[in-house]
Parts: sequence; C-alpha cells; structure tokens
Amino acid sequence: VVICAGFSHGLAILCEVLRQRGAAELAVEECGLAAHRDIVTGAGLRLVNLPVGDDGAQTAQLSGTSAGAALLTPAHQFPLGMPLAAKRRADAVAWAAATGGTVIEDDYDGEYRYDRQPLGAMQSLAPEHVVYAGTASKALAPGLRLGWLAVPASLMAEVVSTRTLTQRAPSTLDQLTLAEFINAGGYDRHVRRSRIAYRRRRDLLAAALREQVPSAAVSGVAAGLHMVVTLPTGQQETEAVASAARRGLAVQGLGPYSFQGSRPPALVVGYGTPPQHAFTGAVARLCAALADREATVPDQG
Amino acid sequence: VVICAGFSHGLAILCEVLRQRGAAELAVEECGLAAHRDIVTGAGLRLVNLPVGDDGAQTAQLSGTSAGAALLTPAHQFPLGMPLAAKRRADAVAWAAATGGTVIEDDYDGEYRYDRQPLGAMQSLAPEHVVYAGTASKALAPGLRLGWLAVPASLMAEVVSTRTLTQRAPSTLDQLTLAEFINAGGYDRHVRRSRIAYRRRRDLLAAALREQVPSAAVSGVAAGLHMVVTLPTGQQETEAVASAARRGLAVQGLGPYSFQGSRPPALVVGYGTPPQHAFTGAVARLCAALADREATVPDQG
Repeated sequence: VVICAGFSHGLAILCEVLRQRGAAELAVEECGLAAHRDIVTGAGLRLVNLPVGDDGAQTAQLSGTSAGAALLTPAHQFPLGMPLAAKRRADAVAWAAATGGTVIEDDYDGEYRYDRQPLGAMQSLAPEHVVYAGTASKALAPGLRLGWLAVPASLMAEVVSTRTLTQRAPSTLDQLTLAEFINAGGYDRHVRRSRIAYRRRRDLLAAALREQVPSAAVSGVAAGLHMVVTLPTGQQETEAVASAARRGLAVQGLGPYSFQGSRPPALVVGYGTPPQHAFTGAVARLCAALADREATVPDQG
Repeated sequence: VVICAGFSHGLAILCEVLRQRGAAELAVEECGLAAHRDIVTGAGLRLVNLPVGDDGAQTAQLSGTSAGAALLTPAHQFPLGMPLAAKRRADAVAWAAATGGTVIEDDYDGEYRYDRQPLGAMQSLAPEHVVYAGTASKALAPGLRLGWLAVPASLMAEVVSTRTLTQRAPSTLDQLTLAEFINAGGYDRHVRRSRIAYRRRRDLLAAALREQVPSAAVSGVAAGLHMVVTLPTGQQETEAVASAARRGLAVQGLGPYSFQGSRPPALVVGYGTPPQHAFTGAVARLCAALADREATVPDQG
C-alpha cells in the first residue's frame, strides 16, 4: 500500500504513471467530481465518457474506446449513489485483462454503508488490473490529506518513484498519528459510532422528503454521506439551489457534476455537515424550500 | 504567504508557474541538492550552471544566460556554507529587475546562525522579483512537510491556483498545530534553545577537527547544521566516506552535490543527527577516520 496526500494526490500520481506508460485517454463516469477530471486532463490525459445506468457505469462500453484506464466509484457511484452491479464489475475486469487497461477504484466513502452487506472491493477480483484507493477524508477529515493506494505489483515501482520524485509525501506526523489511532482501535470505534449517527440522519432526511415532498424522488441512499433528490417536474436546479440558499442551506445541483449526458434536474444533498443540534431544523428548511416550489409551480402554469 | 508541503513542493509549484509564464531555463548554484535539480528538470525547465566563489554564487553571470529564474541559497550556500555577499545580492536583483527574472531564495536553515548578525532576506531588497522560501524542516522536522513562500504580488494568483489545481495542499491539522505553536511562543523558544545546542556541537566538532586533523580545512560553519571538511591532500572522498562508515558514521562526499565545476575532495558533515549522549563519541570517531588516513597516506607514497 502506498500512502498519498488524499485521493486527489493519488489520482495525480496514477495519471502520471499511466501517461508515462503510454496511456492517452482515461474513462470517467458520466457524473463525478469536476476536480478529478481536471487532475486527469492536467496530467495530459484526454477524458472518455462512460454513461451510467441503473446498474452503474456501463463498463461494457470500455472495449469500444481507446481508454487505457478507467476511474470508477463501484461501491457508491458519485454522486448518483448506485453500486456497480456484479455484471458491470466483471465487464470492467474483462476489459482490463484483455487490453492491459487499469481500473482505478475510488472507494471514497466505503466506511458508510447502511442497508446491505459490505460490497467486496473490485480490486479483489483482479488485483493485477485494479488500483484500490481509500481515504481518511470522509471518516476523519479532508484537511488531514491522507489516503492510500493498493497498487498492482506491476505498477508499484513506478507509483513509488513518481511519489518520491515529486517529493510530495504526506506528513509523517499525521501518518504516525493515524497508524496509532488505527492500531489502538480508535478508528474502528469512530467509524462504527459515526455510521450509526449518519444512518439516523439519512433515515430522518429521506423520510421527511418522502412525506413532505412526495413528488421528489430520493435515490443513492444505501451508503455514503449524501443523497440525490430528483426534483418535482417543472423545478429547475438553479431555482431549487437558490430557494435552499435563501433558507441558509448550501446544496448543489447535479449539473455541475456532469461530464456528459443529461439527467433530470436534481439536488445533491450532503447530510454530514450540519452540527447535530441543527440537523432537524435543516431538514425542515430543505423540505420547505422544495415543497414551496411544488405548491407554486401549478400557479405559474 | 503561501503554505506548501515543504520546500520541494514549493519549488515544484514555482517551476510550474515559471514555465507557464514562458521561462525555459533556471539557474542553479554549482553545488546543491540533486533532488532540487530533479524537480526543476521534472517541471520541464533546463538547468543553467552558476559558479560559486568565496563570496557565493556568481550572480553577475546571470545576465549572460537565458535563464528566466535563479535558485539561490543566500544566507548559507548549500552545502559550501558561505553567505552571498552584498555585491552578489545586488547583482542578482539587478538582473531580475532588468530581465523580469525571478530569484527563488531558499532559506533552508535561516534559524541557525551563530557568529554574526542575522542577514536580511534578499526578498526585502526586491519584493517584486524574489520569492522567499522558508521551511519547518530544520527547526522542527522534515517529516512535517510544511514550508512557506513569500511570493511577489504579480505571481501570487498563479502560485495559489497552481497549488489548488494540483490539490496537494499540506495537512490542515499540521498547519493549525504549527500556528498554535508559533502563537504560543513555543516555536521561538525551541529555536533559541536548539540554536545554543547546535552551536555547541559545531564548536566541539570544529575544534576537534582543527586539533586532531590539522591538514583538513573546515568551512561554512557560521550557520546551519552541517560543515564542509576539505580533505587532507591525497585523500579521496569515497575513501573518507568509507572510512567513516566503518566507524558507524554516515557522512557524504561533496561530489554528489555538484552540478558542474570541480572542487577539492571534501566531506559534508551534518552534526544535527546523533543523539546528545552519542555526539562526543561520534566526533572522536570522525577525527580518527580522517587522522588514520592522514597518517597512512605518506606510507603509501
């Protein structure tokens, strides 16, 4: 395992290694973080679009591209929230084995699964073709800048030398502190405790939305710290974001996450941020923001 | 001031910014860290050699080059140890002002000056042309990965956006901890206390070498955590390094630090590493290693 300064740093290292190995293109999911796409293009790789269906990224389409690598969020598609189906995982691995391609498995919130057995990592299906990437950003804090890459043996030397050459190893102090926290059992205790707390928040938010804004559809809720709320017909993302902002809530539309493709207007609602005492109030204000719009839409018709 | 993950990270950011601004070459001192030269070339800049004389880097020669920037160690040339003379500082600043060039002032061990008034930073002579770079690596620990850049206003936006784009900001936890340590006065106390301790070590080592190995010349001792020991005539660096290694001492020859030019065989001897209880013994063993050689050279003649 190679320690990196958060997933973004790990992705930058991997892109550099893959480009030096001759890759020219990297496939990204139709929806994802623009910052990750910027890292890929900043490393000199072109982006290839991978549509996302109800069973996750359409990895069967990889073989029709000239991508040398694919960046996937198999446990919990970001931000749409579905897991990558077993068939789609097998497609990705078959593509990697046939073409020598590399899958980067971004397990950004793997600690927070609620309604199902833990999914196995894709990496275990094909350790020679999949880089597993984990992070302390969700369970502890993004400001810690600590992540880890489980790297195929064939890539290990290049990943380590790229990290060394760029002299950007993360803080040794933080690494030692985290190691002690893990060894003493504190990390596990924290994840178990916070998983229960986040699950309660998710249940509260999803139930409130279903009851008070029945025409909004909630999805992607089996894991993680956010959900996707597809807006009632006629509502636009920018209006819903502005309506929430007027009530003191910072939510984002799905639009800014889209690389290609188009999806119905939706909000990406993170529920990890408000302090505990403010959470119930924040849920009520979000529902009010969406319900108000719901009530007024027919009047405008 | 921009916080970076140690000087190497800051140098990588600066090289990227300078290259995007059109610089193709960067001047480095004749002797310095190979790792820094690798960062410069890794960022796509070519190296230009700057000879070092008794008064430091020969910055008057900058105007005869096509360098767009110069990396200097004005307070304490690394590893040779002389300060950059006032005239040479003025030459560098004049070059920068005339050509639009940038000076990167690497103040790697500025906290540890012993025999003179603190030197002013070059940056104060020409804040619009000099980037001052400081680091916590010497006073605290290299593993902390924290440094800082005082950046000319005209470069600030590009430095910040390059740091943001590469998503390699250092640990927020470490930054907050260091800020509290500085604000509470702990950093100053630590530097004052350790400066006295390191000065004692320097005095002990220099006196022992002068007494026991009189034909070796000690230089670069007015500051820092290392000195340069020019070897007695006839001794080679590799033999002296091996002789010290047989006595359990890890010292380096000057050779590996050289970019161009040639200098008499010498050792670069750091005196910060041994624990306090082992320091006197380490000094004795270093003197024995060099004195032995001194005694045996005539026998081989």
